[in-house]
This record gives sequence, structure tokens and C-alpha cells, in this order.
Amino acid sequence: MNEISTIFATVLSRIKPTGEEKTRLAALAQTIIGRIDALGKKEGFDISARLVGSSARGTWLSGEHDLDIFIMFSPEAERDYLEEKGLYIARKIAGQAEKWEERYAEHPYIYAIFDGYEVDLVPAFSVRSAADIKSAVDRTPFHNAYVKSKITGLEDEVLLLKQFLKGIGVYGSELKTHGFSGYLAELLVIHYGSFTGVLEAASNLVPGTTIDIEKHGNVAHKDPLVVIDPTDPARNVAAALSLDNMCIFIDKAREFLKDPTEDYFRAQAPQPLENDEFKNAMSSRETNLVALVFAVPDIVEDVLFPQLRKLEDSVREMFEKYDFRVYNSGVWADEIAVVMFELESARLPCAKRHTGPQVWFGEHAFAFKSKYKDSKTFSNVFIRNGKYMVEIPRKYTDAKRFLESEVLKCGLWKHVALSIKKDYRVLENDEILEVMDEEFRMFLRKFFEK
Amino acid sequence: MNEISTIFATVLSRIKPTGEEKTRLAALAQTIIGRIDALGKKEGFDISARLVGSSARGTWLSGEHDLDIFIMFSPEAERDYLEEKGLYIARKIAGQAEKWEERYAEHPYIYAIFDGYEVDLVPAFSVRSAADIKSAVDRTPFHNAYVKSKITGLEDEVLLLKQFLKGIGVYGSELKTHGFSGYLAELLVIHYGSFTGVLEAASNLVPGTTIDIEKHGNVAHKDPLVVIDPTDPARNVAAALSLDNMCIFIDKAREFLKDPTEDYFRAQAPQPLENDEFKNAMSSRETNLVALVFAVPDIVEDVLFPQLRKLEDSVREMFEKYDFRVYNSGVWADEIAVVMFELESARLPCAKRHTGPQVWFGEHAFAFKSKYKDSKTFSNVFIRNGKYMVEIPRKYTDAKRFLESEVLKCGLWKHVALSIKKDYRVLENDEILEVMDEEFRMFLRKFFEK
Repeated sequence: MNEISTIFATVLSRIKPTGEEKTRLAALAQTIIGRIDALGKKEGFDISARLVGSSARGTWLSGEHDLDIFIMFSPEAERDYLEEKGLYIARKIAGQAEKWEERYAEHPYIYAIFDGYEVDLVPAFSVRSAADIKSAVDRTPFHNAYVKSKITGLEDEVLLLKQFLKGIGVYGSELKTHGFSGYLAELLVIHYGSFTGVLEAASNLVPGTTIDIEKHGNVAHKDPLVVIDPTDPARNVAAALSLDNMCIFIDKAREFLKDPTEDYFRAQAPQPLENDEFKNAMSSRETNLVALVFAVPDIVEDVLFPQLRKLEDSVREMFEKYDFRVYNSGVWADEIAVVMFELESARLPCAKRHTGPQVWFGEHAFAFKSKYKDSKTFSNVFIRNGKYMVEIPRKYTDAKRFLESEVLKCGLWKHVALSIKKDYRVLENDEILEVMDEEFRMFLRKFFEK
Repeated sequence: MNEISTIFATVLSRIKPTGEEKTRLAALAQTIIGRIDALGKKEGFDISARLVGSSARGTWLSGEHDLDIFIMFSPEAERDYLEEKGLYIARKIAGQAEKWEERYAEHPYIYAIFDGYEVDLVPAFSVRSAADIKSAVDRTPFHNAYVKSKITGLEDEVLLLKQFLKGIGVYGSELKTHGFSGYLAELLVIHYGSFTGVLEAASNLVPGTTIDIEKHGNVAHKDPLVVIDPTDPARNVAAALSLDNMCIFIDKAREFLKDPTEDYFRAQAPQPLENDEFKNAMSSRETNLVALVFAVPDIVEDVLFPQLRKLEDSVREMFEKYDFRVYNSGVWADEIAVVMFELESARLPCAKRHTGPQVWFGEHAFAFKSKYKDSKTFSNVFIRNGKYMVEIPRKYTDAKRFLESEVLKCGLWKHVALSIKKDYRVLENDEILEVMDEEFRMFLRKFFEK
């Protein structure tokens, strides 16, 4: 065995479910499916249960979410009917679990634990083709069928790729991560034939690449990577992948092929940043930090994170518009949300130049000049590059005070706006250490060290 | 007499040479011309003297430079011959003056004082047309002839316009001023028929306007204002006029027409800025000043000022490139030159983001990453917007030290470069008060107040 095969073997021994695990999980799936089907028959519902997801296709990592069991309704059913009856059935089944709760993605489902395994019970429509879906989850059975028809013999390659993506921090297509979904990883392995085949292709990837396995794509996409869904010619499976996560994959693929080690397959959580490390970082960087802190609204991460990013972008734009230069920014959320900005300086001089109309547009000239005639200015009205100018006192010379006063005026989305309207604080530099949360301190280290 | 006529009368009484002055000056001109012609005859030179300039056409302001007497040589003469013999004659004539000195514009001439009047004795070629000139001064006799043929009855209008241009600080086409020449003022009056006619036209002027009195222009010009020379279809008389001086004229013309007062005809020298005024200005503006000081090289202003402006632009660019933000800049020169910059801040934080190659250009990636692997950085190499980045210590965090170290690396022209190479100082904030010169202190007030 050469070096790289040894690495793969070691990694697989860690991440691959054992034969015993597989048997146990298959048996559990069968039991739950049997119960759902029996319940449907007994109560007269036209439904059938089906195992989908990575557990159905032999590509799940130990520790990944375990079983996805879909409760399939006729495509003619009404959505309200599906939600009501689907949940009714799921709740009945979950009654036999150790514990369960109702969750909500695009529509409601039940998350339950049976015999120590996590099980999602998801009502869906059994539509005729992926192009006819009535709800986002309706695709899954088609993905399942496609992957199962192609994946035999490649399962370990998928496991390696998923674990590699996890290790480098770009696994997961949720809107918090903007990375690679499990299905995308499977398609890449199907297309390139092996884990190393995928990495070699990634090494030479450029933004704008399209991969169309079934050669049926019929819509133009503007995403950095386009992987046409083999079950839906109009859909880009990689739509959620950000340019930077794609680039991280390109970069790490090259590095791994040059000098392979097992480290790439281990996600390394950063050490929480200690107070003195924070203070040292700030005094050597000589920049200023300003953080907006508020309670996290009660919404799922896929709704929360786009709103936090929108807030981050809006505040950043507003800072730049008022001449505060942003070096870095980031968002973190648990019970509180922190949106943080590293500024070149949190102080600006009082004097700033204000630009008026072009001199040759006479009608505006007198208005501009008379406006500044009797106000407090640092200079007379003067002319530079054909425009009237005047030097006036800056409204905000302090970034903290600026953010405190203006945050509600910047572009905010609903839930975040409501939460901020209720209450928020702006912390500056050392004040940020008031947030003691370990996970936040990990975020802080990443914020500085990248 | 209405209000505006009263103003004109008052101004004219102040600026218009009296009949007695005119007679005396005409007599003096005649005497000198007679002497030159006699000397030519006696020594066998083919020359003739001629009075040109504003004194020859009745458009000179009291206190303006007084007599321009040209010593005209045949166009067939060699340039060396003209320079040698022209100066020989001029020196002989100047021997009878109270005092005289040799000066140099494009070629040498003699500046002398006769009976208290300033007289320039300028050798020139009597070419056949303005298109055939051999030296820049050869145009003057053609300008003279053209203006004399058109100006009768408009002399006072020219005097008012010249004095107005002086009063608002845009009179003089030298490269220090970039304003209106006397000839340009005369042409504007000829074209628009009166001083107020010129102001009315100016009120509606836009950049890119062409005035072609003789309708013979044959070359495209890119200057903000184009006034085709009636004696040379290829030349723009307003070529030296800057956009901002043109705009100042537009602006003041509008203001004067709206609310005419005599003030527009009085150049108001700014009061020298006192130390405490300087300190107050700096502490309320909260900006930083950095000034480069060096000995003025021994060259005429028309050579010096373009070099100082070039230096100002180069340093400004260099500052901006290194993230120092320039709010204002200016140049001043007497025995020393001062090039001054007002910065948002003279300090920058130590950390700065350094951008590397795009991730998908693989060949550069390893080089960039290995370069920063073992150097002192604030962050790991990371990826943002598809590019490698790293946060590193800034080379210069202090504007004064930066300028001290880098000034010789920026784009400098010959004489200024030589002088700076010999010696220079960089002064910061209050250190600038070491320059006590009254004229410099006037410049300082203009620098702040505009």
C-alpha cells in the first residue's frame, strides 16, 4: 500500500459505518417503514414510506444525521392535507421513540430518536418527475434513485470526499455554510470516478465551470460552479456554493495532492481566544473592533444567517459611506448574535470635504453657497475639479456612536430588524470580551487568524 | 449714473493711467526706440525697434509692467546671432537706465528701469506671419497689430476685465497661476463688446466652449476653454487656463452680475495665519499636516511651478497608494519650497491586508503561500473574493517617516529632484510653524480657509 492508500484506509476505518451498524440501521428503517405503511392502511391514507438520503445509498458518515424516512403522499393531495395528515402519522410513529420534536424547514417534519439513532420523518409528494415537485423535499426521492443507480462501488470515494470537505470546513449547503451538499459530493464522485479524480479536477477548476453529467442542462446559471441536476435540467446542484468555498476546495485539493496527510480529513475546531490573546492581537494590529450585539430571533439558521449577512453588508456599506474603513467583518450567532467589524480606525477627524454641484450648473450654485454661508464650516465654499466644495464638521467622528445611532437606518430584514428594534448594544474593543461564550471565542480566533 | 456705472467709474479712476502718465510713457518709448534705431544704423545692424504689449494698445493698468520694446531682427537671422547681437544692443541701451539686469524666458532679454518705469528690451524675429514664428515672443507684434485694429473705444472695458480677473485671483497665464493672459482678456472684450458682455457670457460658459473670432480654427483642442488666436488658427490663447480658474471666473461673474460691488476689483491678500490660529485650526479639524521643505532651485517660476505641482501629484499618489488619505494639498515657494499635505490621519494601524493571486491561477498559489509561511504575519493566508490574502505588518504606519524615506522614489522632475537630493526636511503639524515667512503664513490661511 502506498502512502495515500494508507491515509485513505485510516480515514475510512474512522468514518465508515461498520457492517453491524449498517445491519442495525437497515433493520430499524424497515421497522419504521413497516409501521408507517401499516398505519396508513389501517387509517385509510393513500401513503407509502420510503428510506432516502445517504443512509439509503451507503454514503453516510458515522455521526452524520442517520435516517431520512419520507412519508409519500399522492401528488394530487393538497398541501394542507399533506401537512396535517403527514404530521399526524409522523407524530403517531414518533410516539414510540425515546424522544421527538416537531421541526420546520420548508414544511413541518418530525425529528425523533429511535434506539439511539436520529430519524427524520418527512411528509412529501410522490410527484412524477423532479421537474414537477410541489415542495423542495420532493426532489429527494429522485436524487436517491439516481445516486443509487450509479454509486455502487464508489461509496468509499464519496465517504472520503465528504470527510475531506468536512475537514476543510466547506461541507454543508445550508445558508450558514454555503458549502457542498452531500448530493453534490456524490455527483462529483460519479462524474470523476474517484475521490482523487475529483481532487485532480478541482485543482484545475475555474469559476464558471459547468458539469452536466446527463448533458441536459437547459438554463443559464451565474453561480461560480454549475453542476446540473441529473434529475432536473433546470437546477444547479451547486447553487448554494460560494466562490470562496469553491476556492478553498481548489486550494486544499492542490495542497493535498502535493503533500497528502490525514489532517485534511479532520475538522479542527479553533481554540477559544483568551482575554490576553485578544488584547495582544488588538495592540499589535492597532485596528479597532466594533460589534453589534442583539438577541437571536427565534428562526431556523437558514433564515437567520442570510439576515445576519445582509445586516453585515448593510452596516459595512454604511461605514464605508461615512469614511470608516472596514478591514474585516463577520457574524456569529447562538443565543445572541454578534456582527463584528474591524476598522482601520474607529475615529475620524472632524473636518470633511463636502462636494456640491458642478460650477456650470448655475441654478444649483447659489443654493449651495447660501446654504453654507451661515453654517459652521471649516472653509469657505471653494472650487475643485469644476465642482463647488466646502469643508464641514463630520456628523459622526466615532464609529461606536455612529453605529448606535444609525443601525436602524440601514437595510435590515424582518426578524433581525425586529430583534434590534427591541434592544441592542454596540461594544468596542475590550468591551467585546464581555461575551464569554466559548464558541464566540473560537469565532474570535478565526476572525483574527483566518 | 446707475450703481454699476458708478462702480466702473470708481474702479477706472484707480486703475487707468492718467493722460500725463500716458504722454510721459509714450515719450519715453519714443526716446528708447530712437536710440535703438540709431544704434542699429551706426553699427550696421538690420534691426528696428517697436513698442508692443498693453502699453502700445492703451490697455495697461497702472502698476502693470510698463513698456515692452522689441528689437526686431530679420527672419533670416540665425538664432545665435539674434541672441548675441540683440543682447549687445539691449545692454548698450540699458547702460543709460537707472538699473538693469539680464533675464531669461524662452530666450534672454534685458529688464531695465528708465525714469522710474519698467522696460523690457526683447530681441525678436520680424517673421511674416504668426504661423511662421521662430521664437515664442515673435507672436507679440501680431497680437499687438490685431488688438490695435479692433480695440479702439474698448480700452476701458479691457481695463475693467483685467482688474476684475486680478481681483478674483485668476489674472496671469504663467504656469504658477494658470489664469487669463492680458491678450485673452482683450480678445474676450473684442468678442463680446464690453466688460459686462464678457461677464454675461461667462455666467453661461461650460467647459468645452470654443470662441473663434476669425472663424479660422483648424486644430482640435482639449482645454476647458478654447479661444482661437486670431493671428494663428492652430493656437488656443486660453491653453494655460485651468478648469478651476475658468470656474472661478464663471462663479464670480454670476455673483457680480447679481450683486455688483467694487470688492471684486480689489485683490485681497489673505492675512498671515498666526501661530494660535494655526493651532486652533488643527485642533478643531483633527486632521494632520505633513510638509516637505527644501531649497528652491535657481530656475524661473514657469519652470519651477510645474515641477512643484508634479511633486505634489506624485507624493499625493504615493500617499494614497500606501493608504494615507489626502484631504488637501498645496505648494508654496519663495527661497524655500513647501509642498504640504493635509491627511485624514498621519498614523495607520500596523495590520494591513495584502492581496495575492487569484486562487485558480495555480502556479502563483504555492509561491504566495510559501512566501508568507515563515514571515511575521497577523493571519494565515486566507481566501476572499477568489483571491489569496494575508494580513501583514504595514511598512509605514507614520506619514512623516514614510515621506522622509520614500520621497526620492516618487516621480520627480530634474531641478526639484536635484534640490531634494541635496537636502530636505519633513515637518509635521506644529513643526510647520518653524516656517515664519509672512507670505507662507498667507498661503497657510488660504490652505485652510480656501
